[in-house]
Amino acid sequence: MALFRGLAAYPITPADAAGHVDVAALRRLVRRLIDAEVGSIGLLGSTGTYPYLSRAERRRAIEAAVDEAAGAVPIMAGVGALRTDEAVALARDAKAAGAGAGLLAPVSYAPLTDEEVFVHFQTVAGEAGLPLCIYNNPGTTHFSFSVELEARLAGVAGVVAVKNPAPAAGEVGAKLAELRRRMPADFSLGWSVDANAAEAMIAGGDVWHSVVAGLFPAEALAICRAAQAGDAAEARRLHARLAPLWALFTEFSGLRVVYAAATAMGLATADPPRPILPLTAEARRRIEAVLRDLALA
Amino acid sequence: MALFRGLAAYPITPADAAGHVDVAALRRLVRRLIDAEVGSIGLLGSTGTYPYLSRAERRRAIEAAVDEAAGAVPIMAGVGALRTDEAVALARDAKAAGAGAGLLAPVSYAPLTDEEVFVHFQTVAGEAGLPLCIYNNPGTTHFSFSVELEARLAGVAGVVAVKNPAPAAGEVGAKLAELRRRMPADFSLGWSVDANAAEAMIAGGDVWHSVVAGLFPAEALAICRAAQAGDAAEARRLHARLAPLWALFTEFSGLRVVYAAATAMGLATADPPRPILPLTAEARRRIEAVLRDLALA
Repeated sequence: MALFRGLAAYPITPADAAGHVDVAALRRLVRRLIDAEVGSIGLLGSTGTYPYLSRAERRRAIEAAVDEAAGAVPIMAGVGALRTDEAVALARDAKAAGAGAGLLAPVSYAPLTDEEVFVHFQTVAGEAGLPLCIYNNPGTTHFSFSVELEARLAGVAGVVAVKNPAPAAGEVGAKLAELRRRMPADFSLGWSVDANAAEAMIAGGDVWHSVVAGLFPAEALAICRAAQAGDAAEARRLHARLAPLWALFTEFSGLRVVYAAATAMGLATADPPRPILPLTAEARRRIEAVLRDLALA
Repeated sequence: MALFRGLAAYPITPADAAGHVDVAALRRLVRRLIDAEVGSIGLLGSTGTYPYLSRAERRRAIEAAVDEAAGAVPIMAGVGALRTDEAVALARDAKAAGAGAGLLAPVSYAPLTDEEVFVHFQTVAGEAGLPLCIYNNPGTTHFSFSVELEARLAGVAGVVAVKNPAPAAGEVGAKLAELRRRMPADFSLGWSVDANAAEAMIAGGDVWHSVVAGLFPAEALAICRAAQAGDAAEARRLHARLAPLWALFTEFSGLRVVYAAATAMGLATADPPRPILPLTAEARRRIEAVLRDLALA
């Protein structure tokens, strides 16, 4: 299933200051991904600012992307919310709008226990009937999944995949082997953190859940395909070429960089939702210089 | 101003599984606090589950509490939200509903920079016209205020107070002295973390922002008054007496403990919002035993 093998590209969700999604701009971004033939689209991921958008706007975004994709590329939509009943409603909406899967993060305010996260996922999977990918993103949710908990969730009907942050190169092989031992054979083991993802795919990961692919799908696909074809040297070379971009992601966050890049490239004129501020003119100039140097824009 | 001196008591916000506030139960909790003569009521704090409630329900809760208080005790209401425009709307609602101040936390998903938090607070203070207390609660918001940033915000018109987590006994004096040096003379320096708050008040803090006071106002008031009267030994004795409660707060979180205690005492039958689960029967028995031992219930 293309949803859970290969490259998943995560676009931004262009929206105005009031959180109204610019559907025309979103369609343009989605069209770029379809034309590049990414494996799947990760709509409304963290870079897609899902927690900042209303239920109605999230549904509008999914409907537009599904319509634009017209079955050519499957779409996974972020369905995370602070409340369990809201996550259930969002997952039902995503299913009704034609998403093939939901990406569910344990969005938290009060720190959650493992048992609370387990019941949250079990409830959403059971009540919405949409295949779910566990979204382990401690940097935003402040909940960190143990292998133990992921393995327990993999036994819940409807929980079919996991997106973990890729650890550094030296650690990813052991982590992947441990997950393979604990998970059902067809359970998709995917990786975020673009700067570490090439090694994770070389080690045998199933999916690269990629921020950079949301804007530069051809470059990310070349890396992903080389890794999956067993050409580790070529995957590393192509990935290392983008090192100036990874450095900017580390300095400003991937989200802020891709918003600035999308604007610089004329693909969208949206700013991130406040309180997140657009980057300064100086930071934007540096990003534009890197894009030019890498012949990305 | 009573809002920013003495004891601020933070009640839970009883609500049903769909997030509909039980206004009758909330009024009973608020009445207990008024009858005990707390300095102020911190409605819709973290223990009051503000981020889990809709804008409409938050407004209903404030209206009910303001009506019940009838001017006898001032009310500060949590106005935090993930989006800046939502925080502005919530602060305007709180002002219109009669709250005397707003408690504003930098609720985050994407990690925020200091500049983003500054502009967020400046915007809410400027657009809502409600006096604001900076809510520094890294355990839930995952943003930690530096003294630098708090001092910068203290220069914004309408930002009048701060609620910091009280550090351990040995550190609170120096922290308080540093804050006093940097802040305007009438800026209220308040403290959360009940287990450390007695020492913070003995050291000269202005407000104890208290979870335990939301349910046991008389016991918290006795500690607060002894500290403010300069009777450190008596404040320490009364605070140490509640040590079994502080241990439960550490083990389960204050929120989970006060929900269980409120139910055990027949004050409310509400569970926390899912995904937060009610405590197990075994944990509830232990909490009930502590309440009995301390003659609290």
